[in-house]
Amino acid sequence: MKLTKREFLQSVAAGAALSGLGAELRAAARKRDYLRISCEEAFSTPEVVAELSRLAGSVPSMKSGPIAGPFMPNLLDIGAGRITNMDADGVDIQVLLLTSPGVQIFAPDTAISMARDINDRLADAIKAHPTRFAGLATVAPQKPEETAKELARAVSSLGLKGGIINSHTNGEYLDDKKYWPILEAAQALDAPIYIHPRDPSPSLEVPLTVPGFEVSWGYAVETGTHAIRLIGGGVFDQFPKLRIVLGHLGETLPFLLGRLDNRYRWQKDLFGLKSLKRLPSEYVRDNFIVTTSGMNYSIPVKAALEALGPDKVLFAADYPMEVQKDAVDEMEAIDISVDLKKRIFETNPRRVFKI
Amino acid sequence: MKLTKREFLQSVAAGAALSGLGAELRAAARKRDYLRISCEEAFSTPEVVAELSRLAGSVPSMKSGPIAGPFMPNLLDIGAGRITNMDADGVDIQVLLLTSPGVQIFAPDTAISMARDINDRLADAIKAHPTRFAGLATVAPQKPEETAKELARAVSSLGLKGGIINSHTNGEYLDDKKYWPILEAAQALDAPIYIHPRDPSPSLEVPLTVPGFEVSWGYAVETGTHAIRLIGGGVFDQFPKLRIVLGHLGETLPFLLGRLDNRYRWQKDLFGLKSLKRLPSEYVRDNFIVTTSGMNYSIPVKAALEALGPDKVLFAADYPMEVQKDAVDEMEAIDISVDLKKRIFETNPRRVFKI
Repeated sequence: MKLTKREFLQSVAAGAALSGLGAELRAAARKRDYLRISCEEAFSTPEVVAELSRLAGSVPSMKSGPIAGPFMPNLLDIGAGRITNMDADGVDIQVLLLTSPGVQIFAPDTAISMARDINDRLADAIKAHPTRFAGLATVAPQKPEETAKELARAVSSLGLKGGIINSHTNGEYLDDKKYWPILEAAQALDAPIYIHPRDPSPSLEVPLTVPGFEVSWGYAVETGTHAIRLIGGGVFDQFPKLRIVLGHLGETLPFLLGRLDNRYRWQKDLFGLKSLKRLPSEYVRDNFIVTTSGMNYSIPVKAALEALGPDKVLFAADYPMEVQKDAVDEMEAIDISVDLKKRIFETNPRRVFKI
Repeated sequence: MKLTKREFLQSVAAGAALSGLGAELRAAARKRDYLRISCEEAFSTPEVVAELSRLAGSVPSMKSGPIAGPFMPNLLDIGAGRITNMDADGVDIQVLLLTSPGVQIFAPDTAISMARDINDRLADAIKAHPTRFAGLATVAPQKPEETAKELARAVSSLGLKGGIINSHTNGEYLDDKKYWPILEAAQALDAPIYIHPRDPSPSLEVPLTVPGFEVSWGYAVETGTHAIRLIGGGVFDQFPKLRIVLGHLGETLPFLLGRLDNRYRWQKDLFGLKSLKRLPSEYVRDNFIVTTSGMNYSIPVKAALEALGPDKVLFAADYPMEVQKDAVDEMEAIDISVDLKKRIFETNPRRVFKI
């Protein structure tokens, strides 16, 4: 970011950068000692929309995806309109990522070439608004070696902060070694990979298709399963410094830490499994970071803070699929200290994404 | 129970009923003002073991089930040996249930006739130790009408406290209307149904088969999915007084209440779904009860108490698959009031299971 925090806060106080703010919110912004950085904020491009629409007939379950929703104008706007909404909602910086399912259902060559184009466009949008946007590189796991190189370019040359992968690719998860070049690159770049939900892999689909619950439950199962496969597949023994970001407060994993360890030890002793180097909870605590997207609620936020510690929880609104202002207000209303809020809204996002 | 609580506590103080207790634990039992009732405690019968063994060649994934473990002697003992262990571990009453997967992988006629036999034997074991055991009736969903009648017999004539169903039956869930006679009977009897985990339904199996995590994650996904299907399938609109018990602190649902409501409303409005009568969280709070089996850990216990209220959380150890004494000690070590512990250990189990 080109402005220092001090300069930014000064500009807030002057009413310049956040001219869209109402008087009440402006007063609040003057008072708070932290920026609000929101870490799972979606966008799209006309080319992605066109390709998704072309495939729609042959893609089984886009129904719950944002592409069918009324979000298109907000998804396609990574400029002034989005900033106006951020100002109105009290969000200072958005970390942008291509909306689910990314380019992962496209033909491999299309996916990798579109990923390059998307990353360039995203970098341009950030360049135009360097105090308001940061972003994650689109990854095309269909081409592991090429996409690892593109991730390196996106981080090192374009200044993007990590990569975004929407759970499975053709029903496969990143514990499959063919995808490990991507993880190796992420570790080498010290760039986190955000594993975002998408419609469940084909074999999970039937039991999880419950109208009204495909997102809240189905997405959590799909993405939590991905995280468990990474742990169980020994990914973090191979890449001990790899950092994985999960949305939705960790897709229920913070609720399960004690049981993950207990039953892992039990199954290991009982069946003589090949041992992981560490306990499951240690990987969750050391290799994962979680955002509050869609989960800005007191009970799970406090549980996640207690389970993972104060430095592993980052604010996210999940714009435009969630109401951004509600997300901000809900997080601010949680009965935790201002110090914790500052970490969640600013300190942790800055450290994790090097903003 | 034939003894009043007062009589029972007096017998404890006299060292009569709990003669196996060490001096330290006996002193503690004298001091505490509640019994410890443990609500998800497994048993088996030689006939069930024989039938499971006969099928083992054709059953895909018994590996993580207790049948392969070193638990057989404890599973088969529903008499003096079990009580000795309960005394040593500080558990006053066990609510017994046939271990997973119940009779649900047996041929329908075998399943229903074995269920009747198991329920008779369980009733006999309880009769022999009425101050130490209560039990749930084995259900054979393969025969919905017959098993509904057997549930009525088990509750009304045998004094069992409800029914136990181990998640899916042949890949189907209880939202399938062919199983609703069972739910109708349970509601009419005011008898709760305990939905216990088992190996995931066939289509969930591939992504969830992660060595060391089939139980902690796979079971939670399987059983949580079952609960979500009941809600989404309108079961509680049809049977508003039906009570469902989930183990493992509700298979992550208490962590997700806010998001379940938020995304349900969103999907309903977006896609014009047929409406449920109430919000998802209202069904979870009103129609579900959770036990602490395998989850006697501070963070999720406190989150579940806050999410569901003080009257919906019941102690369970998951004997003999978990270390019963650890479960007791872990629950006692949680920093909550004695009043809450009394509810979790005694008041709530008594109310839910009419003990």
